[in-house]
This record gives sequence, structure tokens and C-alpha cells, in this order.
Amino acid sequence: MSDQGLKQQFGIGICGLGTVGGGTARLLQANQPELTRRLGKILKVVHVASRRNLEIADIAGIRFSTDVFAVATDPAVDIVVESIGGFEPALELIFLAIENGKHVVTANKALIAVHGNAIFAAARQKGVIVAYESAVAGGIPIIKALREGLAANSIQWLAGIINGTGNYILTEMGERKRTFDEVLKEAQRLGYAEADPAFDVEGTDAAHKLAILAANAFGTALEFDKVYTEGISAITIADINYADELGYRIKHLGIARISDKGIEMRVHPTLIPKKTLIANVNGVMNAIVVKGDSSGSTLYCGAGAGAAATASSVVADIIDIVRSTDGNSNVPSLAFDSLRSDVSVLDIKQIQSEYYLRIPAYDKVGAMAQISQVLMDYSINIEAVIQKEPHGAEQQSGIVPVVLLTDFVREDQMDIAIGVIEQLEQVADKVMRIRVEHFDGERS
Amino acid sequence: MSDQGLKQQFGIGICGLGTVGGGTARLLQANQPELTRRLGKILKVVHVASRRNLEIADIAGIRFSTDVFAVATDPAVDIVVESIGGFEPALELIFLAIENGKHVVTANKALIAVHGNAIFAAARQKGVIVAYESAVAGGIPIIKALREGLAANSIQWLAGIINGTGNYILTEMGERKRTFDEVLKEAQRLGYAEADPAFDVEGTDAAHKLAILAANAFGTALEFDKVYTEGISAITIADINYADELGYRIKHLGIARISDKGIEMRVHPTLIPKKTLIANVNGVMNAIVVKGDSSGSTLYCGAGAGAAATASSVVADIIDIVRSTDGNSNVPSLAFDSLRSDVSVLDIKQIQSEYYLRIPAYDKVGAMAQISQVLMDYSINIEAVIQKEPHGAEQQSGIVPVVLLTDFVREDQMDIAIGVIEQLEQVADKVMRIRVEHFDGERS
Repeated sequence: MSDQGLKQQFGIGICGLGTVGGGTARLLQANQPELTRRLGKILKVVHVASRRNLEIADIAGIRFSTDVFAVATDPAVDIVVESIGGFEPALELIFLAIENGKHVVTANKALIAVHGNAIFAAARQKGVIVAYESAVAGGIPIIKALREGLAANSIQWLAGIINGTGNYILTEMGERKRTFDEVLKEAQRLGYAEADPAFDVEGTDAAHKLAILAANAFGTALEFDKVYTEGISAITIADINYADELGYRIKHLGIARISDKGIEMRVHPTLIPKKTLIANVNGVMNAIVVKGDSSGSTLYCGAGAGAAATASSVVADIIDIVRSTDGNSNVPSLAFDSLRSDVSVLDIKQIQSEYYLRIPAYDKVGAMAQISQVLMDYSINIEAVIQKEPHGAEQQSGIVPVVLLTDFVREDQMDIAIGVIEQLEQVADKVMRIRVEHFDGERS
Repeated sequence: MSDQGLKQQFGIGICGLGTVGGGTARLLQANQPELTRRLGKILKVVHVASRRNLEIADIAGIRFSTDVFAVATDPAVDIVVESIGGFEPALELIFLAIENGKHVVTANKALIAVHGNAIFAAARQKGVIVAYESAVAGGIPIIKALREGLAANSIQWLAGIINGTGNYILTEMGERKRTFDEVLKEAQRLGYAEADPAFDVEGTDAAHKLAILAANAFGTALEFDKVYTEGISAITIADINYADELGYRIKHLGIARISDKGIEMRVHPTLIPKKTLIANVNGVMNAIVVKGDSSGSTLYCGAGAGAAATASSVVADIIDIVRSTDGNSNVPSLAFDSLRSDVSVLDIKQIQSEYYLRIPAYDKVGAMAQISQVLMDYSINIEAVIQKEPHGAEQQSGIVPVVLLTDFVREDQMDIAIGVIEQLEQVADKVMRIRVEHFDGERS
């Protein structure tokens, strides 16, 4: 890391090309222009060690090894991504990388939970960074929130759904009234759970993550061996139903709390009130609630696993390392080192949306026929209609509302159609129009 | 900022002692030991400018001014907190501070949204940092998530509830069937809304924040004047009810999206499906969903306003500035520069919890009497009991479950009570015990 402030390229070495390593290599390649624009420097994969084939297209300038230790000693490598998993040779690799003055990024929660204290001591000694955002809750930047975003706080408590497989099983049991064994078998078939599911359903994986979260929250060393751990295999559909009657959902939580008496760290099935946000985090999603003395409670939710989400955090760690060790790379004020000016802001008339329309009418049946005709004339599909009786004040007025949801349409087209509708004989007043947003991913 | 890496104390100057400035001064004082342990350096308020009295106890070594510009030129000040609000003299102050080589922290969303481009250009020119985490969504570290945690992504879309007053009004209208005008008057009485409420309910405040979020997401300059803005004053209870029938809630959202056509930035009432997490963010809470191409959707939720939550983000910015400008202050591996060893991890038997108990019994009435007696003997209060008929398989077995929730009790006491219950004549099998967690703040 000589030439601080002048270095234009950072060499990345990836050890292991499974889910995490492969995802990282693909992401670094796919988003390279955007990453360069953010950082003002180039992140370049220069060395890969794997027994698998490298599935990225551009292999020019990349050295391949079957020996991971070759990456840790390669002078072209600034940052080593440990994506082997397990304890050995991952641990030996990390120590060798540190010894050689390399920064390290790892998604290896077991390794950090069990050997983190020794790893961090070695890194501090040598003045390098070992980053592990991806080790907890996949694509959710929760380590960053704890270490930086909430750094002003005494953190008092945190609790989270930190194993997606366990949450998927409990969600399926609750929503479809299927037994633990049935859902587990399906999860294994779908590839969510390992053939030996104990790691997920008996809570070991969650305990690793909780130990990491608790140390970061309270400022203690990692104490994985002191986490109380209880799995979900004893939970029955009857328990889920009784909890529901009492106003609760059952989730497999990691909970950490500090008080005058000491620190609690525990992983176990937990009843939480249905009305809380985290009780409604379902399927394979992860979520963590953190209570700081000044921030109050904040919640973080997202994908806890998968190649893309995990790689998002691995590459964020790489960017952080460059920014914090390169004298010329502070976080830019507006996130990017060079701002783009090649993209224009659309006028509201140019956007596409689905719409809720409430149309006050004199006669519902006649009005509906006229309105449908207008919408058809402008190629606007109706997705849903409310044919019920009017609410409240509308009841007295003699005016009945026609309420409908449309499919996607450009706002300027909708404006014209609404203008025509408002002129209809059967329509009594201005049309109320509210846009709709689905939050289920990007539309095509 | 001479003596990089040797400086042991950083001087903080606070301009304005209203909600934000006062909260920041109090937080820096209240958490000073914890902050010093995190940072390995001392953050010291050295200069305060206000027409108000300083409400913090320790005023030794603090210089007082009634002229904010004196803070920006004070050689003892490393970081200026601009907590005046509004455009002038805040803007002049920030430029003066930058000119004098000071870093700046501000919660002033209007100022950043409107004048941020010029401010950031001046800061970059001078090599100082202007930080504004607290300007958007109070205590939620959303700027950090966008600029750093999700930095590996091309961000495609974000949408959020970013004005607490508006969300409070819509929540109250929906839950209590009260009109917009009624709830607004109450919000003003409670101090949630300004006497002139247009800033909140017509969407200007949300538009400021959306412009900041969109620039950070897409890597463009700030373009506040291009945000489409529509308020919530036209929303009726009837609309909320119709939306409910269609499966939606109405929220006042800021939405930003990038596509081949350009960038959308819009603030308006929006129908969102009830089953989404963000549809269930109620009252004055804020929440933002961000969709990255690699991370997928992540959600961030918390308090969007208030002295303590805002100060949490102001002080986090101060810590970030020290860490990124002081050569010896990288983010520590486990969040704290010096780890504590004076606090022990409690054994699960020492923790206190509420419990769900499912007790298989031969005769419900007789069993309930015996079980109640045992719990009373161990001073365990019953909070709720299910007296309904058994579910599913229990129906055939002739065994009826007694299901109850207890008040807080130490786990070792609960273990003993369960042991005694399992020996009761009327009890047929092992007791199922699940701990309860309420997520409504710390218990006493």
C-alpha cells in the first residue's frame, strides 16, 4: 500500500469461488463502471484461487491458482477476499494475509465468531483491516449501522431474525399449517437448508451472528461460547396457533441485552406481538432491531443470504477499506467521486404509474359504463373496481363513488382521460386520483 | 488539523442550541465515556453560540458566543455543528467554516437540498467534510447505508416515509376514522406540526429529503427544484377506507427511480399493499426501502425526528469525520477502540423473561387450579390464559392443553415451577415453554 493518495488501482484476490467468492467476482465485474465512478479508483480482480472454473467473462490480467496461500503472498493483491468458508484453511489464510500486510474481507461468520478476537488482534498489530459486514445478515449493512451509524449511542438491546432458513420454516408452518418436518424437507429440496439442517434449525448459525452483533453493540470481546442456543424443532403448529390467539407470532430470534446485571446473549424461539414490524418479516428475510439510548429503536431488514446480497456487503467492505486506507478517498459528499450529468429528471407527466381513481357519480351503473368506455378509448386497463355502497358523507349526498384501480399508464394519458371523465354527464365532481406503488421489485 | 495521528482531542463548536444543537450538546456530554472508548480520542465541546442558555451541566472550558461566526473562526474548533436551521445565516456560516478549514455537520435538510451543490464543491476544494446524516430521517443511518453500506450496487429505486407528521396524520385518519383537519389540529396542539403546516403536509420537507436521497442513490447533483410534490390535504377517510377494501394503505411517500428514460423524483400520497412491511410503519416513524441491483430491497426504519434521534446522527457524523481525517482512527474491528472486560455474560438461568407455557393436561379445569397454585407459590403472575378448545391432534388424544402467558420471572424460578407442574397428577406430559419479547422499548 505504498504511494498513498496516488494509487489508482487496488488489487483484489479472491480465495474460493463458491456462492460468496463467485458472487463477488461477478459483482466487481458487472458494476465496474459504477464502482469506479463512486471510488475514483479502480477495483481489479488480479488473482483468484479455486478448484472451480472462474465464471466471469473477462479473465485478462487475472492470475489463477489452485493454492489459496498464493493469493495471500501475491504482491499485486491489496485486499484478500476469504470465501472458502469453514475453519481451515480459512483461518491460516487470513493470518498469512495479515502477516503479508493485506487487508482481508470475509463472510465467514463461524470463523469470526470463534476466532475473531485473535484475528482482530493480529490485524491491529499489523495495521490492516479485517472486514466482515457480509458475515451477518447478508446484504443488510448492520455491522456498519452498529459500528458507525449508531456510534453516538450506548446500545442497550438488539434482537433479530438472523437465520433465513429458520424464518422460512416458521413462516410456512404459520401460514400453511404445515409441520416442522414437512417444511424442513421442502426447504432442503429447494436448497434453503443444508442436508444436515442442525446448523440452521438448532440455532448455531444464529448464535455465531449474535455473538458478532453483541460484541459490536456493547464493546466487549467476542464470546460465542457463552451464547445460549435453542432451536425451533420442538415448535408445533398448535403453539403457533395459540400464540396467534394471544396476539403473537413465533420467530427464531437472537437477542442481546446489557444491564447492570450483565450481558444476555440468547438464541431461541420467541413470541413477539403481531403488531410489531419485525413480527411481519416473513420467509427467508432477515431483520434486526437495535435500541440505542439516543436513536431509539431502528430496524434493518433485507435478504440475509444468497450470492448477490452477500457480495453486495463483501464489495462494500472492499470500498470501505480503500476509502479508509487511501489518503485521497474519503466518502464523497453525494456518494460518488464523479457525479453524472447525462441523465435527466422526468416531468411527472412522463412517469408511468398505476392509479387509484375515485369518481363521484350520479348513477353508479350508468357512470361505470361511460367511464369504462373512456378508459378503453385511452387504452387504460382496469385492474379492480369497488362496487360496494358509499361510505359516510357520500351516503347522504345522493352521489355514489365509482372506485377503481388501473394498470400502468403514462401520467399525461391519465390526465387526458380524467379530463374527459370529468366532463361525463353522469360524473358529479372532480376525480380523486392517487398513485400506486407495489414495493415488490422493479417493474419491467 | 495538524499533528495527524497524534491529536487526542477534537474541538466541537455548536451554532444554535435549539432542538438539534441542544440535543447534540447533551448527547456529547451524556455519553462521553462511551464515545471516548469507541474513538480512542476525546470529543470536547469547546465553543457554543446561541441566544439561549446552555442547558448542559459541565460548562468548564466552553467558550460562549452570541455570534455564530465566532465559532467558525475559533482555532480551538475542529468541527462546526450548524444547528441554526433555515437559509441565513446558516449558509454564510457554513461557507465561513469551510473557508477556515473546519469540518461541518448539519441537520439542515432545506439548506443541503437547495444549496448542497455549492457547499460540497467548496468543501471539496478546501479538503474538508460537510456531513448531513441527520438531515434525512433523523436517527436512521440512511445516508450511510446509501453512500457506504450499499456502495457495491447500482441503486435502482428507493421509496420512503420521510415526513413523520404526515405519516402521523394519515395513521390517525386510518385507525380512528378522524378527518384530516381534526388530526392536523391535534398534531399542532401536540407540537408535531408547525403552526404553518404546509411544510409538512404539502410535502416540501419530504421533497428536500427526497432530493438528497436521490442524488446519493444515483450519483447526480442535487436537483430539488425538479421534485414533483403533492401533499396529503385532499385525502379523505373515504379514500382510506376504499384503499383498505382494495388491500392497500395510503402513505405519503417520496419515490425516486432511475431507468433508461431518466430519473423520477416525486412526493405524493401513494397506495401501497397492506402486506408490505412499509405499509405497517405507523405514527411519526420514518422508513425507507432501497433497491440495489445486488443487495435486493433493504428497509430502514426508525424515529425521523426529535432531539435525541437527530443528535444520534449528528454525533455519528462527528465520529465519522474524526475517523476519516485522523490518520490513527480507523473504525475498530469490534466498534470500540478499547474493549470492556468488566461485564459478564449472564447464564440463561439468570435472565428474566415473560413466558408462554403450553401444559398438556387430563382435565382442564382441575389442572388449571393446580397449575395456578404452583405459579402462585413461586410468585409467578399469569398475564393471559387460553380457555378455548384444543387444536388439531390434541383433539383426538383426550389431553387438553392449558395455555398461558406469565409476567416477568427469572428463568431458574421458572425451571423449578415447571418441574413441579410436570409432577402434577393432572398434567399429562412435558411443558412447552417459549420466551416472550415485546419490542416496545427496554423494560425497567
